Amino acid sequence: MPIVTLTTDFGTRDGFVGALKGVVWSICPEAQIADITHEIAPQNIREGAMALWRAYPFFPGGTVHVAVVDPGVGTTRRPIAARLGEHVFVGPDNGLFTPIYEDASRLGRGVEIVHLTNPRYFLPKVSRTFHGRDIFSPVAAHLARGVPFADLGPPVTDPVRIPIFRAERTAGGWKAHISVVDIFGNLTTDLAAAEVLGRGQPLFRLHGREVRGLADSYGQRKPGDLIALVDSENNIEIAVVNGSAAQLLGAQVGDPVDVIVP
Amino acid sequence: MPIVTLTTDFGTRDGFVGALKGVVWSICPEAQIADITHEIAPQNIREGAMALWRAYPFFPGGTVHVAVVDPGVGTTRRPIAARLGEHVFVGPDNGLFTPIYEDASRLGRGVEIVHLTNPRYFLPKVSRTFHGRDIFSPVAAHLARGVPFADLGPPVTDPVRIPIFRAERTAGGWKAHISVVDIFGNLTTDLAAAEVLGRGQPLFRLHGREVRGLADSYGQRKPGDLIALVDSENNIEIAVVNGSAAQLLGAQVGDPVDVIVP
Amino acid sequence: MPIVTLTTDFGTRDGFVGALKGVVWSICPEAQIADITHEIAPQNIREGAMALWRAYPFFPGGTVHVAVVDPGVGTTRRPIAARLGEHVFVGPDNGLFTPIYEDASRLGRGVEIVHLTNPRYFLPKVSRTFHGRDIFSPVAAHLARGVPFADLGPPVTDPVRIPIFRAERTAGGWKAHISVVDIFGNLTTDLAAAEVLGRGQPLFRLHGREVRGLADSYGQRKPGDLIALVDSENNIEIAVVNGSAAQLLGAQVGDPVDVIVP
Repeated sequence: MPIVTLTTDFGTRDGFVGALKGVVWSICPEAQIADITHEIAPQNIREGAMALWRAYPFFPGGTVHVAVVDPGVGTTRRPIAARLGEHVFVGPDNGLFTPIYEDASRLGRGVEIVHLTNPRYFLPKVSRTFHGRDIFSPVAAHLARGVPFADLGPPVTDPVRIPIFRAERTAGGWKAHISVVDIFGNLTTDLAAAEVLGRGQPLFRLHGREVRGLADSYGQRKPGDLIALVDSENNIEIAVVNGSAAQLLGAQVGDPVDVIVP
Repeated sequence: MPIVTLTTDFGTRDGFVGALKGVVWSICPEAQIADITHEIAPQNIREGAMALWRAYPFFPGGTVHVAVVDPGVGTTRRPIAARLGEHVFVGPDNGLFTPIYEDASRLGRGVEIVHLTNPRYFLPKVSRTFHGRDIFSPVAAHLARGVPFADLGPPVTDPVRIPIFRAERTAGGWKAHISVVDIFGNLTTDLAAAEVLGRGQPLFRLHGREVRGLADSYGQRKPGDLIALVDSENNIEIAVVNGSAAQLLGAQVGDPVDVIVP
Repeated sequence: MPIVTLTTDFGTRDGFVGALKGVVWSICPEAQIADITHEIAPQNIREGAMALWRAYPFFPGGTVHVAVVDPGVGTTRRPIAARLGEHVFVGPDNGLFTPIYEDASRLGRGVEIVHLTNPRYFLPKVSRTFHGRDIFSPVAAHLARGVPFADLGPPVTDPVRIPIFRAERTAGGWKAHISVVDIFGNLTTDLAAAEVLGRGQPLFRLHGREVRGLADSYGQRKPGDLIALVDSENNIEIAVVNGSAAQLLGAQVGDPVDVIVP
């Protein structure tokens, strides 16, 4: 069965997401639909990009991912679809898919991108304010039904990218950043665990605090301890056992984490 | 595949919505189920009515819509089902479906309504406090399976209606109202855009502020600007570019918007 | 179609739940997936246990329920699956399934439990921090596909239990407790309605207030009244008509309710 995922800043209160699902099922009744999140901070493209990027690899090949964080809706910003391997992404060309493009570069794989210009795959009437419903969802449903990618419109070779935090090498190790603050207050960083594993006890400095070494799991230390560990995407994470590191430190996305590797 | 939608004030924390889905699948295992919203303010019938009304047209014919905002559960208020064209609505007879009845009148179409009295389509044991689970969901699932509408109970000809905001003509144009405040703080009004389009620059007055003319899209003006535009249901909307008009103005549902049409 | 339910403290903002669904569908593409709740207070095992316990009986036989409130992830706490009748539960062995075990005892039925040790049913790479994604979801999906229960690992005979509030008999009636505070502010107690029905007007005392007798439904009394009634799971509930008893009384889970039965 075809799968469509949804990542938006629509919230779940107003019924916008319901309308998207109605549109998808009107075109592709057998689609399974999964919400990735609808609680991206309004118009926060970077946050939407990170949420989609963390979740998409766990979906099977053939999944079509709709992402709509779209402050430029109704302007000349392009609606696009991007294909990386067996995953397809549909949304505005505003940088939402930057981490996907970076995955592709790192893996040495190509991304095919098209500008969505073929109105045959849109709703008959396209509003100026709700392309999630009128363009992206119907295009995704048609893709889920097997419409050829190339039918959607002409190729795009200059997609918009946004700056993404990337840990930088320093004399003593790395200057990393907090890339995601999750609901538990855990702080994911942009430093791949592989850069510090097997090289002795690394030291992490953030918000005037120091953490030495890596814990194996939350439960290995005592409640309230500030720890560093390898997160579920193999990046370094800073956490408080049974508590919130974000709250303890007042930490936010983008804050620096200095890493000393022996 | 049959589709069932859910619109409630149950929230998503307590597991009530999970129980509804379990009931639907116990009766109609192949149903697709979409949440429209579960964040209607507790017992706010008008808000529930508007959310359902905005989303339902995007679902395919044959969809069964369950709506439960039900302060009168367990009293003599009637459980009903209403059929308009190929859409069926199931819930309490307390005005939740008023905008659907008005759609029907405007389109010159009939609505068939039945009083749900046939216990064969309820759960075996019906509680006094949770008809969403014990009556509305099982009835919806049976409808999704193809049970004839008339088997559910006798016809209803006097369904309860609630007052719905409707823009009124004035000497210089319209007295409109804010009908929905969405999660972005955009203010939907009850004035159809068709009433002002093509007649020169309309002037909108609300909360001591004036907005002249219509923008084509949010992105066309600069961040922070208070604008008027055509929303995704073809009504007039007041918004702040990259911001919240609700917050800027302290605006609420029901507030007046004076419209001067040249 | 196989059904998988999800009960977690992950919230819906970060995309964790999306990843769980991707994993389930990667293994069992035809599964229907229902969210019971993802808003359990972080690491509140008791709250998760109660939410799952209230919802699961409404799902059809054969449903696989994943529950993840898991402060001990990555430690020696066991991952388990438990089978009661036709329902299967998958999650950490930390007491989350205590009310299920108690249901079984009360019904005089056995619960089969296995320690999840067979990595064949896990994701290929298991993280130390996200067993919901790497162990519990894939095991649930394999169970939904029909993998024999006994293939998952060796039997467990000493599952972890947590204390669950249980009303105690007193000289004049019962000492009950608030077991759930729902989104409406209704206070579910741990006293089965059967203990007081048909024995004259019971008297309920909590937070310095008294409620005499049982109302038939919310709507039977006037707005603002503090009432007692039978809830949808046949326990005694304290509520405020069109209001919040939790807010009125400042009541919380665990607070005592003295019940005098004539």
